[in-house]
Amino acid sequence: MNIIEGGVTAAQGFEAAGVEAAIKYQNRKDMAMVYSAAPCIAAGVFTGNVVKAAPVLWDKEVVSHSPAVQAVVVNAGIANACTGGQGYACCKQTAAKAAKVLGISEDAVLVASTGVIGWQLPMDRIEAGIEKLAADKTDTLAAGTSAAEAIMTTDRISKQAAVQIELGGKTVTIGGMCKGSGMIHPNMGTMLGFVTTDIAISKELLQEALREDVQDTFNMISVDGDTSTNDTLVVLANSLAGNPRITEKNEDYAKFKEALRYIDTTLAKMMAGDGEGATALFETKVIHADTKENARTLSKSVVCSSLTKAMIYGHDANIGRIMCALGYSGVDFDPAQVELFCENDQKRIQICKGGMLTDYDEAEATEILSSPEVRVIVDMKMGEAQATAWGCDLTYDYVKINADYRS
Amino acid sequence: MNIIEGGVTAAQGFEAAGVEAAIKYQNRKDMAMVYSAAPCIAAGVFTGNVVKAAPVLWDKEVVSHSPAVQAVVVNAGIANACTGGQGYACCKQTAAKAAKVLGISEDAVLVASTGVIGWQLPMDRIEAGIEKLAADKTDTLAAGTSAAEAIMTTDRISKQAAVQIELGGKTVTIGGMCKGSGMIHPNMGTMLGFVTTDIAISKELLQEALREDVQDTFNMISVDGDTSTNDTLVVLANSLAGNPRITEKNEDYAKFKEALRYIDTTLAKMMAGDGEGATALFETKVIHADTKENARTLSKSVVCSSLTKAMIYGHDANIGRIMCALGYSGVDFDPAQVELFCENDQKRIQICKGGMLTDYDEAEATEILSSPEVRVIVDMKMGEAQATAWGCDLTYDYVKINADYRS
Repeated sequence: MNIIEGGVTAAQGFEAAGVEAAIKYQNRKDMAMVYSAAPCIAAGVFTGNVVKAAPVLWDKEVVSHSPAVQAVVVNAGIANACTGGQGYACCKQTAAKAAKVLGISEDAVLVASTGVIGWQLPMDRIEAGIEKLAADKTDTLAAGTSAAEAIMTTDRISKQAAVQIELGGKTVTIGGMCKGSGMIHPNMGTMLGFVTTDIAISKELLQEALREDVQDTFNMISVDGDTSTNDTLVVLANSLAGNPRITEKNEDYAKFKEALRYIDTTLAKMMAGDGEGATALFETKVIHADTKENARTLSKSVVCSSLTKAMIYGHDANIGRIMCALGYSGVDFDPAQVELFCENDQKRIQICKGGMLTDYDEAEATEILSSPEVRVIVDMKMGEAQATAWGCDLTYDYVKINADYRS
Repeated sequence: MNIIEGGVTAAQGFEAAGVEAAIKYQNRKDMAMVYSAAPCIAAGVFTGNVVKAAPVLWDKEVVSHSPAVQAVVVNAGIANACTGGQGYACCKQTAAKAAKVLGISEDAVLVASTGVIGWQLPMDRIEAGIEKLAADKTDTLAAGTSAAEAIMTTDRISKQAAVQIELGGKTVTIGGMCKGSGMIHPNMGTMLGFVTTDIAISKELLQEALREDVQDTFNMISVDGDTSTNDTLVVLANSLAGNPRITEKNEDYAKFKEALRYIDTTLAKMMAGDGEGATALFETKVIHADTKENARTLSKSVVCSSLTKAMIYGHDANIGRIMCALGYSGVDFDPAQVELFCENDQKRIQICKGGMLTDYDEAEATEILSSPEVRVIVDMKMGEAQATAWGCDLTYDYVKINADYRS
């Protein structure tokens, strides 16, 4: 697997664009398009929130029933959630406009929105944006970057990743972009994520690979515990790589899953590290748990704990808070067995043994907690299962960003 | 039911004290005692956290097996959690010292601690504190207040309440105190709560009344979603009121439950409103839910949402966040049926109808969200169940308090 530069335009046949459409923001890009002249099969996972945004309802239909997908239209600034029948009509109108401009069918268009909940989309500006996007789109790396920038809301950095693998003598490329900084606690998807690939694969296996992968990637991050109404992650595959089509769980499928895991993990970690107001990426790896499910629950409980997150921000090794967060996770265990370690790229120290704090060196602990990437390892000593979750610290800026008018 | 001044010394026969013992804090009270010369039956509910502090383990034993309780010894500053066998030995030593000084038996002493997790108690100072407490204790209102002050950690206000009811021609008094500001998301109890009463009642009914009551009081508040290792709520009843002993669920039992509900609700709301860094009490009442359990889950989901809490702090009616929090609660419902209202003591406005935002007046909404007590009413239109949850806003000061060294 080779890690390469780029994002959604890395794979063969994919074009993209990002433009200023003044949906809510002024003087910045706020609409993006991804397009493939070659028809794609599509797989998707969507928010588990009962309150689903209109684009989520539209995309679920398209992913389930359309024979092929060719375009995605995204806007930032307004989420088109809690917008009723009018909101759904906006999705249809967006898809219809894109279909007309691109010369494709309406049900080949996915739509996605992110931003303020409850407002209706300004359809005149959406339609004008689509015309610009269709005119601007190219297959360059810069176009992919432009699209990744256009879907940002409170994100500080744009997020993309790409890899290549060899399958049957052919080079297969997988690239992706995502956005997300607040209201991040994905449940079957994340705020918005788009992965494009030129792999030839059956729709069933693409969907299965995606569904399995998000359990250990996007579903393992949390910024603030709020599962969005708009969580969407779609993968488009246009077959242009010319690899032997994957229709069974063979070696090629395993290679593809490994590459997809890399893309999704990379994007998910970028999202956690760029959490609203965050100064550090906070990783918790639980090892030797009795079951995979318990390992996931325990690791997520730690990265979701407000007190632990504030401790990371304060660089204060108030380690009891980690034990506390493990304890209220809902998983049963013997606290006297638990061992905790804390590390950064330079060093690792043991901070808890036999359920009691060790007499770790405070200066060393403070140094580790001051790193841009803080990792905690939790050894449950119960079995062989493990899981990793990613979050970020809780800062003044998180409060500032979310207390500000209609952020 | 008459609301009266006072707390744990309001009921007949209860004495209390609060003293400076320099456990961790300097120049402030940090140890408290509650004492009854007349033996009490005791009921208690304790943290659901798997990681239980040593005093929780001690108190569970005492409440279950001791024939009578006469004293409670509390310290603030160090939680005596994650302290292993040594921590439990400290509880026993504390009880033994109090028993000796007070001339009672060791298993008649409850102990409670709150503060930093992982540190061992300085037993010399604990023992010196017990001697001072035993010498100082009186049955005055001031002594109860002093005890309520001594158990505070990051609390800004001390918390107590008292009521009187008439049972069989006798006046029965119930008073209580509690502390709690951070790590507040009680599960079968709360940080520390102590209720004293002179009622004559059977131990079984006292325990049942308490267990039922906390479901709708202490278990319905959240400051930060972190369920403490030390949550403890105990009720002591010494029979001195001389009412006909309650041994069945008669009218007197109903009156007692109503009074207990008032005490527990009052104390729980004080704790939520005094949440770390909070500027407002935030109440969410869910009405017309299909089941009581779903009403509780929905209302707690809203008061626990970081984004909703930040919105209250910012006085910004970003109402979609409330719908989002209802949606990810885990309860199934039709968003198109939901109606939301927002109110303070002066006015009430409808902010959501048919799953869509109304065109409410922004100035009015901002005015309501700027109140010291903000209430949201959620009408699910599904059935007859209802529940109320209490929380607070999320502020810079919450982060400051918890990022600071060993808060």
